[in-house]
Amino acid sequence: MTVSASLDYRVPYADTDQMTFVYYANYLIYFEMAREELMRAIGLPYSKLEELGCALPVLEAVCHYKKPAKFEDILTITATLAEMKGVRVKIACTVKRGEELLAEGWTVHAFMNRDGRPQKPPKVFLDAITSTPTIPES
Amino acid sequence: MTVSASLDYRVPYADTDQMTFVYYANYLIYFEMAREELMRAIGLPYSKLEELGCALPVLEAVCHYKKPAKFEDILTITATLAEMKGVRVKIACTVKRGEELLAEGWTVHAFMNRDGRPQKPPKVFLDAITSTPTIPES
Amino acid sequence: MTVSASLDYRVPYADTDQMTFVYYANYLIYFEMAREELMRAIGLPYSKLEELGCALPVLEAVCHYKKPAKFEDILTITATLAEMKGVRVKIACTVKRGEELLAEGWTVHAFMNRDGRPQKPPKVFLDAITSTPTIPES
Amino acid sequence: MTVSASLDYRVPYADTDQMTFVYYANYLIYFEMAREELMRAIGLPYSKLEELGCALPVLEAVCHYKKPAKFEDILTITATLAEMKGVRVKIACTVKRGEELLAEGWTVHAFMNRDGRPQKPPKVFLDAITSTPTIPES
Repeated sequence: MTVSASLDYRVPYADTDQMTFVYYANYLIYFEMAREELMRAIGLPYSKLEELGCALPVLEAVCHYKKPAKFEDILTITATLAEMKGVRVKIACTVKRGEELLAEGWTVHAFMNRDGRPQKPPKVFLDAITSTPTIPES
Repeated sequence: MTVSASLDYRVPYADTDQMTFVYYANYLIYFEMAREELMRAIGLPYSKLEELGCALPVLEAVCHYKKPAKFEDILTITATLAEMKGVRVKIACTVKRGEELLAEGWTVHAFMNRDGRPQKPPKVFLDAITSTPTIPES
Repeated sequence: MTVSASLDYRVPYADTDQMTFVYYANYLIYFEMAREELMRAIGLPYSKLEELGCALPVLEAVCHYKKPAKFEDILTITATLAEMKGVRVKIACTVKRGEELLAEGWTVHAFMNRDGRPQKPPKVFLDAITSTPTIPES
Repeated sequence: MTVSASLDYRVPYADTDQMTFVYYANYLIYFEMAREELMRAIGLPYSKLEELGCALPVLEAVCHYKKPAKFEDILTITATLAEMKGVRVKIACTVKRGEELLAEGWTVHAFMNRDGRPQKPPKVFLDAITSTPTIPES
């Protein structure tokens, strides 16, 4: 069983660059949008996490660009809980246009408290992921 | 005498859109960059203002687009203290490429305290602007 | 009768700034998203307009900020064809959270051809708006 | 000998998020700014590359986040030609605040022609990098 969530997003002009493609940094925003969906699906929206005095800063971001996304494309962005190890969580993301894979990558995050120290993930989060298979680290 | 500050900025690919021009929302970021320069010139960098428990949220932003800015252009962005009225301040901005005016506009802000209530501007700010002529409201 | 279109949009972390509000330039992106919806509603998506050799650059953008939008808010962004005069079109926009008005403003555009010269709007566009009442210029 | 270029950049409010840090996607924009400096240092500004009918799309982007950058920080962003292999080029980037390393990563690009086909890099580029040592692939 995998813990995963998706959203659809239509590319605005704002996201394009003069190559007529989506500018590469925007994919990390797309990843974030799907990640937020995932957190809501788990029952722990990011705002609630912050209310609990917890943050989930990014330690690492990786994106592989396969095919360009374009203006007005409807993208399906998916985030999947890929791995959990101590306070670290890895979330895999894909950006598709229909069946076509445009980009894929992942982010690694650490649960921290308000003082920036590593902190055990909240129980609701741990409960949600116990059924997720562990995959080998990147 | 006018209170004014400028900075030079080279347009990255990130700021362009598929029309090969700088995307229109970015000019408000350029305005902000010049505004921050202005605050530093006054001796009240925005971070210091926040330390004083003060914020300066935007109430209004206006931009007139004359000619497109392009990738790799070196822009000169200028912010000028245009008007002060109670807790409100109006800052006029221009974006130029050499002598060419590409865009101009302004933002209106209000000094507020941490609770979001209007608050008298800090003395250092008032001192800096006493020599600035009042111009008629837009 | 008015020609108008809306979309819902959930505020990602990307759009916030350290004041914990949506950064002010992002509202112009929101305006664009609604404008694109409007063009699609009219039957002339912006990509089709460009295929016709036509562009619709922004001449003026105005935004009045009433209340801050925040992370995870679901915003309803609406664009309304406000006025048509020669090659110029004015589109009014609002950003709401439920019934609350957070921001409102407008953009003014001109229909241009590939050489950057003013050009009569395409017939499909004119047909769509004939039923729209003319409002006084700003 | 290494081929490398840097620029200084002051963090505007626009780049922050509600965690009061620079939002993670912005680092890819910082990487691009330094990359452009590198291309200019080589004598092949990106605009000139495009005039030659050549593009250099991103295939891969990686960023490791060490410490948060903050509003008003003056960042030194450096791009270094790390590796050349056929039509592919890898550019390593660092983001520092003084001596402190805040983030590091790289991008991988491919030289392509207007039709999106792999293309030999221009001679001026190859000449510039012949003195650069090849480093092992990531």
